[in-house]
Amino acid sequence: MELARILHRHPEVEIAAATGRSQAGKRLGEVFPHLSACDVEITPDIVDSVDFVFSALPHAASAERLEPFIDDGVKAVDISADFRLKDLDEYTGWYKITHPCPQYVETAVYGLTELHRDEIAQSNLVGNPGCYPSAAILAMAPAVEAGIIEGGSVDLNFSEVNENFKAYNIDGHRHHPEITQELGDINGGPDLKITFLTHLVPMTRGILVTCYAPLKPDAVPGGEDGRTAVRRIYNDYYDGEPFAKVVPQPPQTKHTSGNNDCVIFPTVDLRADRLIAIACLDNLVKGAAGGAVQNMNVMCGFDETAGLEQLALYP
Amino acid sequence: MELARILHRHPEVEIAAATGRSQAGKRLGEVFPHLSACDVEITPDIVDSVDFVFSALPHAASAERLEPFIDDGVKAVDISADFRLKDLDEYTGWYKITHPCPQYVETAVYGLTELHRDEIAQSNLVGNPGCYPSAAILAMAPAVEAGIIEGGSVDLNFSEVNENFKAYNIDGHRHHPEITQELGDINGGPDLKITFLTHLVPMTRGILVTCYAPLKPDAVPGGEDGRTAVRRIYNDYYDGEPFAKVVPQPPQTKHTSGNNDCVIFPTVDLRADRLIAIACLDNLVKGAAGGAVQNMNVMCGFDETAGLEQLALYP
Amino acid sequence: MELARILHRHPEVEIAAATGRSQAGKRLGEVFPHLSACDVEITPDIVDSVDFVFSALPHAASAERLEPFIDDGVKAVDISADFRLKDLDEYTGWYKITHPCPQYVETAVYGLTELHRDEIAQSNLVGNPGCYPSAAILAMAPAVEAGIIEGGSVDLNFSEVNENFKAYNIDGHRHHPEITQELGDINGGPDLKITFLTHLVPMTRGILVTCYAPLKPDAVPGGEDGRTAVRRIYNDYYDGEPFAKVVPQPPQTKHTSGNNDCVIFPTVDLRADRLIAIACLDNLVKGAAGGAVQNMNVMCGFDETAGLEQLALYP
Amino acid sequence: MELARILHRHPEVEIAAATGRSQAGKRLGEVFPHLSACDVEITPDIVDSVDFVFSALPHAASAERLEPFIDDGVKAVDISADFRLKDLDEYTGWYKITHPCPQYVETAVYGLTELHRDEIAQSNLVGNPGCYPSAAILAMAPAVEAGIIEGGSVDLNFSEVNENFKAYNIDGHRHHPEITQELGDINGGPDLKITFLTHLVPMTRGILVTCYAPLKPDAVPGGEDGRTAVRRIYNDYYDGEPFAKVVPQPPQTKHTSGNNDCVIFPTVDLRADRLIAIACLDNLVKGAAGGAVQNMNVMCGFDETAGLEQLALYP
Repeated sequence: MELARILHRHPEVEIAAATGRSQAGKRLGEVFPHLSACDVEITPDIVDSVDFVFSALPHAASAERLEPFIDDGVKAVDISADFRLKDLDEYTGWYKITHPCPQYVETAVYGLTELHRDEIAQSNLVGNPGCYPSAAILAMAPAVEAGIIEGGSVDLNFSEVNENFKAYNIDGHRHHPEITQELGDINGGPDLKITFLTHLVPMTRGILVTCYAPLKPDAVPGGEDGRTAVRRIYNDYYDGEPFAKVVPQPPQTKHTSGNNDCVIFPTVDLRADRLIAIACLDNLVKGAAGGAVQNMNVMCGFDETAGLEQLALYP
Repeated sequence: MELARILHRHPEVEIAAATGRSQAGKRLGEVFPHLSACDVEITPDIVDSVDFVFSALPHAASAERLEPFIDDGVKAVDISADFRLKDLDEYTGWYKITHPCPQYVETAVYGLTELHRDEIAQSNLVGNPGCYPSAAILAMAPAVEAGIIEGGSVDLNFSEVNENFKAYNIDGHRHHPEITQELGDINGGPDLKITFLTHLVPMTRGILVTCYAPLKPDAVPGGEDGRTAVRRIYNDYYDGEPFAKVVPQPPQTKHTSGNNDCVIFPTVDLRADRLIAIACLDNLVKGAAGGAVQNMNVMCGFDETAGLEQLALYP
Repeated sequence: MELARILHRHPEVEIAAATGRSQAGKRLGEVFPHLSACDVEITPDIVDSVDFVFSALPHAASAERLEPFIDDGVKAVDISADFRLKDLDEYTGWYKITHPCPQYVETAVYGLTELHRDEIAQSNLVGNPGCYPSAAILAMAPAVEAGIIEGGSVDLNFSEVNENFKAYNIDGHRHHPEITQELGDINGGPDLKITFLTHLVPMTRGILVTCYAPLKPDAVPGGEDGRTAVRRIYNDYYDGEPFAKVVPQPPQTKHTSGNNDCVIFPTVDLRADRLIAIACLDNLVKGAAGGAVQNMNVMCGFDETAGLEQLALYP
Repeated sequence: MELARILHRHPEVEIAAATGRSQAGKRLGEVFPHLSACDVEITPDIVDSVDFVFSALPHAASAERLEPFIDDGVKAVDISADFRLKDLDEYTGWYKITHPCPQYVETAVYGLTELHRDEIAQSNLVGNPGCYPSAAILAMAPAVEAGIIEGGSVDLNFSEVNENFKAYNIDGHRHHPEITQELGDINGGPDLKITFLTHLVPMTRGILVTCYAPLKPDAVPGGEDGRTAVRRIYNDYYDGEPFAKVVPQPPQTKHTSGNNDCVIFPTVDLRADRLIAIACLDNLVKGAAGGAVQNMNVMCGFDETAGLEQLALYP
């Protein structure tokens, strides 16, 4: 639904097909009245030749359905979890299934554009990150790369939308290994100790993550100068990025509602010498459909912001 | 705020100035972080020459500030109530003030584009309708014009956003005379008896109006044929309109969130021989800033939908 | 759930059993943590002897399960629709099933305490009204009895909670015949033409009904005196009632959250000579569990307000 | 407002006076329709003799108005911040004012009943804790006393109601010194390093705090046994408490809506050897009016739960 909303206004894209079983035969606008301008019929399968495929199927099903397209050299972004993790044992451990299409796992690129833009541009297959990892990795990557975190210890505290009806995974969340994989790569070692906790709050769209991490002694100067130093690290890291934006005030989820921004506020708790980084994004846009379109833009050589320019709807 | 959001993406418009007193000297994006892409400084006055002015000041203040621009032949849309009512005594009766700029009242055009498109195209000054009248007039105009309403008796039942904090006006709402003026014009007589009642509901954006009116005996056929006849009246009336859309199911406010549509569902209560028409719009878009931009487009000869094409953000 | 919350604090009641299939074997507090103080195990059936039974099963299933208790002379309140309608054909027409227990339909009492208190006190079986009819009948009964409504024509406009996920019944709502039955009885004739329309709004609890009806010519004096006359009719009608309260301002659903009040605001639209009556209640309390407990109190000779005294939780 | 709601149903209390300036002369029920059963007139001052005083005035104003009552030996609970902090310099540092009534600061008791019940029973003056400290201290006290926290380092992550419109205090929250004072007392040293962060979420009532703290090596066994050990520490600490309840699942704010419970869920993040404790309470009840009534009950020798027995309103 959200992909159709974005692609309908994309200057380089024509929606050739939308697949679905239970609603096959209807038009998109019959199922979702706000999409009545998208005059596309829902079909069980893609029958005509297409240049690009997005899959938002559940894991395993997604890789199975994508496989023939990948075989044929059609570019694809997979929004499921199938092409995110490099370690097939981790995949099986978290998703309780043998990977249905392991031959493409190694060459698939983890689709956080800000971290892997060059590889994405060369790739035919991108595994789009989960919405939590998108927020958490963007919030912590500058600090991890700068080496200012003590022991790699990070608490990730999420406030998420209530529409997910996601079980509260106190014993471990499937997005945990993605975050460890990506931040661990930046960190250059396996020693990250990440606590990951999600809270449902009554919002329609949006994720807010608050990250806590102890600073190494003397990693940054004391007092306000330390805050300035941390902000500089973040600003340098995201310099020129169109969608990862360092902001001077704690952000609200509403500031990203319907648009593709991830807004990040880093600071230091001076009393406790801890880094705090707060990040917000729209879980349906930057955390899913918008991030996928950003990747398509990079993969196809379009302007990276094409179709993604609209401002947030506030309030 | 909402005008800036829309105009920022309008292909024919450059925002030359944004005025304000309490925030003068700041940039728009400092006050509204979601507008940080609009790099405009807030100033107390418009100093440079401009081609078009929107005013969203309170009534009376709005006409006063607009007067010199109108004198100079600058095109303008006034979002306040100052140029909506043709009868100056009605204006004074409802707004408790002598009109500060009466010489332009007669030539100003009531800015419901769907009803007054040709006059708007010829006009330099448009009084944009209130959000309630926009919904109510669009919901009832086809039935009033078709002459199928008994005694012109209409109950308007509004569910509105709670952000307005508007007093509950059981003794009469200031939007009442607008609705009477416009539907009375269509009706060709003064006999409309309109009950107008608003209810606050906890939504962020959106207005939903449910209109009830007794049908004249034999105005439409009995049973489902009557519903078909009513739907045909509405479809014919709004044929070709880009933003007034007759829909086959009762609409939800969310279906218009952030976009310029007014969606209208007409039907017949077969047990009671009553017309029911339900209409939704986004009070900040079609009910205010979007409707104003639609008028600007018509006044300036732009494509009527320029800058207003985006789909609703749902959910 | 809501019955347990109320009965747990009722001075005359001990909860002897709570039945349920899918959760059988658990304690109430395991399923609903806010009820952990109610130390009752959920069982598939009532095994021990009880003095009183409430049923909140779906229609038809409810009457079937209640039948042996009624046979044994156990007093019962049925919260389903099974014992509300006197006309078995109406029941079958709306609910598409033959009544499973027709022998008790005639003697069952319609459980709107304010209208049928004396019969309820004498009865062993009460059919508790639906939440919409509770609000609508209490809002209109005084005006219908006073004979001030022209043609018995009434528009009922409901704003209801979104938790119901109830289909929007544009072609007729199952609560329609209850309202017609009860207001028709008061009216003394079959001529009521009732339009009944529901709107989902994002609230957690609560129903608000706005009723519109044309006044007979000269039924009440003109101007403010007419409003005073209407208020007097309502005050006289509900004089001494503990839970049906005529209020001097339009009510909010929050004013009844968690308590057993139905608050009613009657007035006259002076421009259109129409009666407007607005009523609010908590659909889970006065509209269901609380109304049922009120009936139990009357049936058992307890103080009518026992267990129902708590104030609304606001905000 | 919330005190009146609770006290109206308290078996040992009669509301003798309710003071207020802007609404003086009105009755409580005129200002708050849900309190229409509380037939008390609002007056500028307390004129008749009273046995007990609650003050909910702003800090400084509160101590000033309470002083003559304390002088006269009238028992009092102060809901402002004036009698919470023992260190007058801390008070002045955070509240930017010289304490208006310093002679009573030392003998006033910090009103977290679960920690100071015996002193409260002997006291005439109790400083009721803030809503955040109530939640945070109850969540962490058992772990701090058990000495299982490494370095006394704690991250407190609050999700709070949006009705507060409280500024987001990234540089330090006024409730910080309370928490440090109380947990520091239990810890027996000054070394607690507490990070305290609040997030506004769109709820009507309720606070949820998530506390993160590194466990000392070998403080608890590994794996599930560690979770069991932590749970036992918490259960032992709150054994017999009527309102501080250790629960087996992560709690929701709705589970405490309108009642006086603080529900606490402790666990261990096994991947990161961190204690996580989540606590919820209703900020208007246990976090303010209800906690104050609990203290009054203890101070006056009433049953500690009198007037506070009602179950949460869910949903």
